Amino acid sequence: MMGRMLRFSLFGESHGRVVGVLIEGVPPGIKVNLEKMKAELERRKGIRRFSTKRRENDEPVILSGVFNGFTTGFPIAVIIENKDVDSSYYEEIKNTPRPGHSDYTAKIKYFGFNDYRGGGFFSGRLTAGIVIAGYFAKEILAKAGIEVKAYIKSIGNIKAKDLSVEEIFISKNSFCPDEEAFQKMLEEMERARKEGDSVGGVVEVVAINVPPGIGGPYDEDLEGDLAKAFFAIPAVKGVEFGLGFKLAELRGSEANDPFVVKDGKIMTETNNCGGILGGISNGMPIVARIAFKPTPSIYKPQRTVDLEKMEETEIKLRGRFDSCIVPKALPVIEAMMALILADHLLRWLSWKGLMSLGKR
Amino acid sequence: MMGRMLRFSLFGESHGRVVGVLIEGVPPGIKVNLEKMKAELERRKGIRRFSTKRRENDEPVILSGVFNGFTTGFPIAVIIENKDVDSSYYEEIKNTPRPGHSDYTAKIKYFGFNDYRGGGFFSGRLTAGIVIAGYFAKEILAKAGIEVKAYIKSIGNIKAKDLSVEEIFISKNSFCPDEEAFQKMLEEMERARKEGDSVGGVVEVVAINVPPGIGGPYDEDLEGDLAKAFFAIPAVKGVEFGLGFKLAELRGSEANDPFVVKDGKIMTETNNCGGILGGISNGMPIVARIAFKPTPSIYKPQRTVDLEKMEETEIKLRGRFDSCIVPKALPVIEAMMALILADHLLRWLSWKGLMSLGKR
Amino acid sequence: MMGRMLRFSLFGESHGRVVGVLIEGVPPGIKVNLEKMKAELERRKGIRRFSTKRRENDEPVILSGVFNGFTTGFPIAVIIENKDVDSSYYEEIKNTPRPGHSDYTAKIKYFGFNDYRGGGFFSGRLTAGIVIAGYFAKEILAKAGIEVKAYIKSIGNIKAKDLSVEEIFISKNSFCPDEEAFQKMLEEMERARKEGDSVGGVVEVVAINVPPGIGGPYDEDLEGDLAKAFFAIPAVKGVEFGLGFKLAELRGSEANDPFVVKDGKIMTETNNCGGILGGISNGMPIVARIAFKPTPSIYKPQRTVDLEKMEETEIKLRGRFDSCIVPKALPVIEAMMALILADHLLRWLSWKGLMSLGKR
Amino acid sequence: MMGRMLRFSLFGESHGRVVGVLIEGVPPGIKVNLEKMKAELERRKGIRRFSTKRRENDEPVILSGVFNGFTTGFPIAVIIENKDVDSSYYEEIKNTPRPGHSDYTAKIKYFGFNDYRGGGFFSGRLTAGIVIAGYFAKEILAKAGIEVKAYIKSIGNIKAKDLSVEEIFISKNSFCPDEEAFQKMLEEMERARKEGDSVGGVVEVVAINVPPGIGGPYDEDLEGDLAKAFFAIPAVKGVEFGLGFKLAELRGSEANDPFVVKDGKIMTETNNCGGILGGISNGMPIVARIAFKPTPSIYKPQRTVDLEKMEETEIKLRGRFDSCIVPKALPVIEAMMALILADHLLRWLSWKGLMSLGKR
Repeated sequence: MMGRMLRFSLFGESHGRVVGVLIEGVPPGIKVNLEKMKAELERRKGIRRFSTKRRENDEPVILSGVFNGFTTGFPIAVIIENKDVDSSYYEEIKNTPRPGHSDYTAKIKYFGFNDYRGGGFFSGRLTAGIVIAGYFAKEILAKAGIEVKAYIKSIGNIKAKDLSVEEIFISKNSFCPDEEAFQKMLEEMERARKEGDSVGGVVEVVAINVPPGIGGPYDEDLEGDLAKAFFAIPAVKGVEFGLGFKLAELRGSEANDPFVVKDGKIMTETNNCGGILGGISNGMPIVARIAFKPTPSIYKPQRTVDLEKMEETEIKLRGRFDSCIVPKALPVIEAMMALILADHLLRWLSWKGLMSLGKR
Repeated sequence: MMGRMLRFSLFGESHGRVVGVLIEGVPPGIKVNLEKMKAELERRKGIRRFSTKRRENDEPVILSGVFNGFTTGFPIAVIIENKDVDSSYYEEIKNTPRPGHSDYTAKIKYFGFNDYRGGGFFSGRLTAGIVIAGYFAKEILAKAGIEVKAYIKSIGNIKAKDLSVEEIFISKNSFCPDEEAFQKMLEEMERARKEGDSVGGVVEVVAINVPPGIGGPYDEDLEGDLAKAFFAIPAVKGVEFGLGFKLAELRGSEANDPFVVKDGKIMTETNNCGGILGGISNGMPIVARIAFKPTPSIYKPQRTVDLEKMEETEIKLRGRFDSCIVPKALPVIEAMMALILADHLLRWLSWKGLMSLGKR
Repeated sequence: MMGRMLRFSLFGESHGRVVGVLIEGVPPGIKVNLEKMKAELERRKGIRRFSTKRRENDEPVILSGVFNGFTTGFPIAVIIENKDVDSSYYEEIKNTPRPGHSDYTAKIKYFGFNDYRGGGFFSGRLTAGIVIAGYFAKEILAKAGIEVKAYIKSIGNIKAKDLSVEEIFISKNSFCPDEEAFQKMLEEMERARKEGDSVGGVVEVVAINVPPGIGGPYDEDLEGDLAKAFFAIPAVKGVEFGLGFKLAELRGSEANDPFVVKDGKIMTETNNCGGILGGISNGMPIVARIAFKPTPSIYKPQRTVDLEKMEETEIKLRGRFDSCIVPKALPVIEAMMALILADHLLRWLSWKGLMSLGKR
Repeated sequence: MMGRMLRFSLFGESHGRVVGVLIEGVPPGIKVNLEKMKAELERRKGIRRFSTKRRENDEPVILSGVFNGFTTGFPIAVIIENKDVDSSYYEEIKNTPRPGHSDYTAKIKYFGFNDYRGGGFFSGRLTAGIVIAGYFAKEILAKAGIEVKAYIKSIGNIKAKDLSVEEIFISKNSFCPDEEAFQKMLEEMERARKEGDSVGGVVEVVAINVPPGIGGPYDEDLEGDLAKAFFAIPAVKGVEFGLGFKLAELRGSEANDPFVVKDGKIMTETNNCGGILGGISNGMPIVARIAFKPTPSIYKPQRTVDLEKMEETEIKLRGRFDSCIVPKALPVIEAMMALILADHLLRWLSWKGLMSLGKR
């Protein structure tokens, strides 16, 4: 369970009956557009060529919380049935944990009772539930005019050039607004694929029209809640806001964003802080970057340990793996950002409501 | 309030009566060594030359939860009185928010009722409470043999060389085990100070002897909880684990850590993942890096907006500012890591306890 | 979401697709006996004659969190499909709230978007999810030897005589150990049924073998958590522990339970406090009584308001109603008690685990 | 920590340095009237004759979260120093737990490390913190016109007659609006006092002007949250709403409250349900009754066990005890009700705010 006013919990396993999500605290009266939800799920399949060959229809079934086409305010449970499941292989490797995977740590933590088939609860497939929850969060944000967009910032060493927020939002390329870089990224992913290897990358996500005043210090910190949400996504190993790690190299006089007045509104001239000061939105676009390690499942032989014999061995994986998961991560990152922003928006509306009571 | 089994909340203001912390869920029977707690607080003062000239004795007063020198298991409240307070200056600038600070966002979020003097609740001074809470967490971890150590990885563009975990833990330099780099860091901080400017940096933190199996997926993700805790510290703008952002540039075959057997135990040959796989500790050292932006308070003139007149203006700050907060952040980072690890250790002990019941 | 270490959330609607429950924090390695779970669900149907004529097979489908017959430690989602649904009638009465029901308050709170058919999320049918969650909790408690049993204490004015804990646990009558009183209770329920009316009653629940030390003060108070869980059950209007309201009439010298030594263990001679002192179990049986109001759905004409015309009117309900829900509440009450005790048991095992670490 | 939007935690010990409270989530801009807060604390001293002879000035010191006379929106810590402390006696009885007290269970749960002096954290003295938190909650409720009032319903067998909500709120007797019964209650308390005994009683609490729509089902249930809050108060053993346990004896046709229209508003003719249907306020007065057992500390000799020798013994308490705590409980009960209602009011304002966004 994550969140305070808007809360969600994932359930399901990669090779189990379903993957699903329970979302609590969605306000009533939100019109549910199943086609939009499915379109988000479709985006989560990424670029076919570089994605697992497992083919799932990903038909979301809303079990509760929606009535006559609108949210009711009660818990919303949504599931997707798993259909294209082939678990035979995982029996073979259940004692030889795949390097870079949760196989070993899951076995320890769950005393060997975890469903190891296809990664079980740790599978990237669980992110379908995040995307579904994110759909509802995006509809909440839409009421306040807030929009969220993620794109690929880099694949391996191929980096997109710096882009304005406008360029990011108007781009027709749904993966990367820098077309030239994107072609090179495709080539890099192809190289990794051909080598039987995988490659990592960085996603940048931007939220616009967030009013100033969302978030707070310490346990209410917007950066902290966003980071926790991003790190919950499999393969994420780094999160930064604004200039992020680059800021550590700067002087204060370079890093500080001067306040200016534009069109009668307070803004900052630059946005080095990524739209968040003191854990609170300042009205500028919120900008985060998220680093994904390369998917650990590769076709090259790898060294590991046979846990039964307690001796070193080599495994060569067979199966259906992604050579790069970064393209499929875009709607997941957007969903997580939307969920956190919607939760904080709802908290903020509470105080605003009380202030207006006080004025009467 | 952060945490589930071990929980803490900060309170107080920079120029108010006190700063303090309330810690709930500390198990009974932990011997309280006030001298060790004070030593941690002393570390939080950093390097005098580059720290604020405000001089506080930082004498912690335990209000509750400790009896006959041991924790009782009840909420522990600890306060430090503020003594060396000079607020006059903040009245002058209360309508001209300092760039890079929370002045503007706090004013919006709290409808103008926030205590703006010295940053109020957003002040770095509040981190004294984190250090105090962290003291108790470290004592909990000590029972399981877990140790945490943070050091300066970089100041501006000066970076410490790569160091082994052993080198980090045995170093007698409490700021940076790379003596040569440390001298250059001091020079860089001195340059920033002389220019009336500030400079950022990166902290690396390492935890050793963490048993495999601590943490979990999604809302139990160790990386997520650590990141949320780190981002709660003022001026943090980036967090990464293991190779972090560097991993996004690698191939899977380079990134994956091979499992090996050493001394009859499962280990990984490399530690690119920073000791965490699937959100769960794998028994290797847990390694994180945290990026700090330069302190926003500098003596150079800066552009801002007069919020009453809604027109652009310039401010030149007077006051007592840090030219670099990275040295003082070390015990704060350690405290946050200790708090999160202790919380997860307590959760893990619960399941372990049930498993052993089942065996009887 | 209720609970800290063991947590559960209900979802579904009376006339929607399913009712279900998500349970988080169930430790791995618990053998799942579906027949036992179904037997509990069967008990929830109560005494056929006095229960709704709606006939549901109540076949629980475990969607996640169980693998090879054991819990995995991951979220467990279980659903029951709704099959025997007839909603036509509820369209007729959607603007004339049934007295004593949540129809009116739900409409207001959810701005008219709630699923009003059959009470929607407020239906007693949702308690099937509680019983399922309770099944897992009971299996956790079984590892510590803890057992929970509920029985009917009264129906209308017919009261069971006072019974020893032994009599309660060995009785073969699954509704009430006092056979004589039970016959009169059946007659009283029959009278209510024939009159087209309903009747309330009181359930007593007892937990045995709870070790001393479970619970705590304030937010950890066992009585408080149990009461919150009991009041969550539809139609509950009162909760008391030990002698409960009767204690308010006594002197301290009558109410206090003297401590005695029996078989080398500390016990109390009487159990007026119901096994809980200071919010913590004292090792004696935990005893609570829960008051159920009569089901609000009756066949007699009732006065209400037409919410569209805003004028008073009369309704005469048609449909399939319980004349007494007390018999069906027994497994629900047990489930709630088991869930709270298991959550607190898990918290307690955490501290115990740390104490034993400290001893090494 | 209790609550979601408005949260509070108690700390301190009866014979420790302070008792105190940390309150999080209080919105900014609430004018703080210290005299009103002190007046509430004064009420908590009850009727001098029947209260402990311990004399504390109970001067609340606000440590944080209030600036220029208004709440800031940040955590509010308030403490009261303990001054009139005499702990010598408690050393004598630390191995002979007082019957009816938490002495034994606290010792077990906290492995003997609890502060046993004067009951430590379990002391009624801790309720001062509840009253302080409740003061802020009452100010929040005042913005919505909501008022809360508690009075003594019974002492021992002496019961106040049934009173209208108007009579309760206009009464000048701050303990009980039924003057005649109150005189008898005083006599009953005097009898208990003279006998060296104590006596229990029942408090009724009423909230008026609560808008319909506050609360929700299951974990949002207003009855459940109120009950949890009430049971957190020492000596509470029963809680009921509306007719409470009496409802279990009635038929549905007697219990259901008919809806009527009065002054263009929906009301119910009777209020048997105590203003709550389905866990949600229905706009009628919210009415709860809370049963207090007699204070366990009495002067009569009592049987207990010497925990060191593990043998039965007798104790005769010396010290300063209340002969009846019911009069002092009134502001505590009001505070708890105010805290829960304010928390739920803030949640409700959030959804209301979103609905109005949707309308633009």
